[in-house]
Amino acid sequence: MREKSIPISTLRRLPVYLHYLNSLKDKVTNISATAIAEEFGLNDVQVRKDLGAVSGSGRPKTGYSVTELIAQLEAALGYGIKTNTILVGAGNLGKALLTYGGFADYGIDIIAAFDTNPALWGTFVGGKPILPDCDIEAVCTDKKIELGIITVPVEVAQQTCDRLVACGVQAIWNFAPTILRVPDGVMVENENLASSLAILCKHLREASPQHSSECS
Amino acid sequence: MREKSIPISTLRRLPVYLHYLNSLKDKVTNISATAIAEEFGLNDVQVRKDLGAVSGSGRPKTGYSVTELIAQLEAALGYGIKTNTILVGAGNLGKALLTYGGFADYGIDIIAAFDTNPALWGTFVGGKPILPDCDIEAVCTDKKIELGIITVPVEVAQQTCDRLVACGVQAIWNFAPTILRVPDGVMVENENLASSLAILCKHLREASPQHSSECS
Repeated sequence: MREKSIPISTLRRLPVYLHYLNSLKDKVTNISATAIAEEFGLNDVQVRKDLGAVSGSGRPKTGYSVTELIAQLEAALGYGIKTNTILVGAGNLGKALLTYGGFADYGIDIIAAFDTNPALWGTFVGGKPILPDCDIEAVCTDKKIELGIITVPVEVAQQTCDRLVACGVQAIWNFAPTILRVPDGVMVENENLASSLAILCKHLREASPQHSSECS
Repeated sequence: MREKSIPISTLRRLPVYLHYLNSLKDKVTNISATAIAEEFGLNDVQVRKDLGAVSGSGRPKTGYSVTELIAQLEAALGYGIKTNTILVGAGNLGKALLTYGGFADYGIDIIAAFDTNPALWGTFVGGKPILPDCDIEAVCTDKKIELGIITVPVEVAQQTCDRLVACGVQAIWNFAPTILRVPDGVMVENENLASSLAILCKHLREASPQHSSECS
């Protein structure tokens, strides 16, 4: 069932390369892995390996055709394929994701958002309707939802996840700061903002232990 | 200069444990690493190692005191220490972060946000003023800004980062989908939403190659 598998670490870099190549395509015909590596401060062996996962190898001297490489990256990333998506939890973060335009390239089509707050029902954010959370099952089944975005409070994240999985959702994008349990075959990608902050703040304290910052 | 170093993978899990322990503290006095591991579907050797990085080892039979462990986790994560922060780029995502309340526990004090759009100057989002981006240097210096949140378009992310670093900012939380270059001693934590989506969409296509989703 599986097509050629691309390592996750590579997959994380592909959107970055793609964005860069798109910014160059009107100016440059060919590009080398070395030039891309230099742009991002990466090792060029790594870049060559990443590009090798979606393309052949570049030609000696000329490198890769920029337009071909763009097409190959878009194919690998599934541009143009629509993914039916719902979002659960229309708080600040949920609303931001609803209005954020950056996901369109990935074919993410947010059909609806759900919330337990009756005051939000029937309102629209970013053009998407906010519905009662009791309608989750009906919409998931009816619209064949594949991807669920979880922006609910952490206390109800697991039960929200369980409901989505029970409806056949196969991929979960989790913004609640917890570890979700899912059956085999379902993928969870965690966007744990608190963990990122913990790492940055730890760095700051280690860089300057007397770090106080009472300044105003 | 460095205090006892906690591995980054451990650091990512600590906020999750802390949140869980806080939810239990009124009900439970002691907890074992095994119980925490079971809650999150983790290996208990891993949890024991994680907790060992911030605490002694649990007592045989009784495990850890919940309140002590909470205090040790908070100390390790630097709760109560204020971190002067600015945000650059007050678009949808920037505004969401300004209004999101979840960072207060980490002592993140967003002093101001900056944008190039004059229509936003002098307005407030989440109680934070939006200022002209030409004021970045003055505010960073005056307020001793340590952490910079970058939510600008990718094309100007590197130059924004360079400006912050030149002002002495030591930690960058980057939401622009690119790889930022920083000098040694400055830490970048990337929150690349596009990369997360790429991984999830790839999983969906590998799970069902005929994935079409023209349903309405």
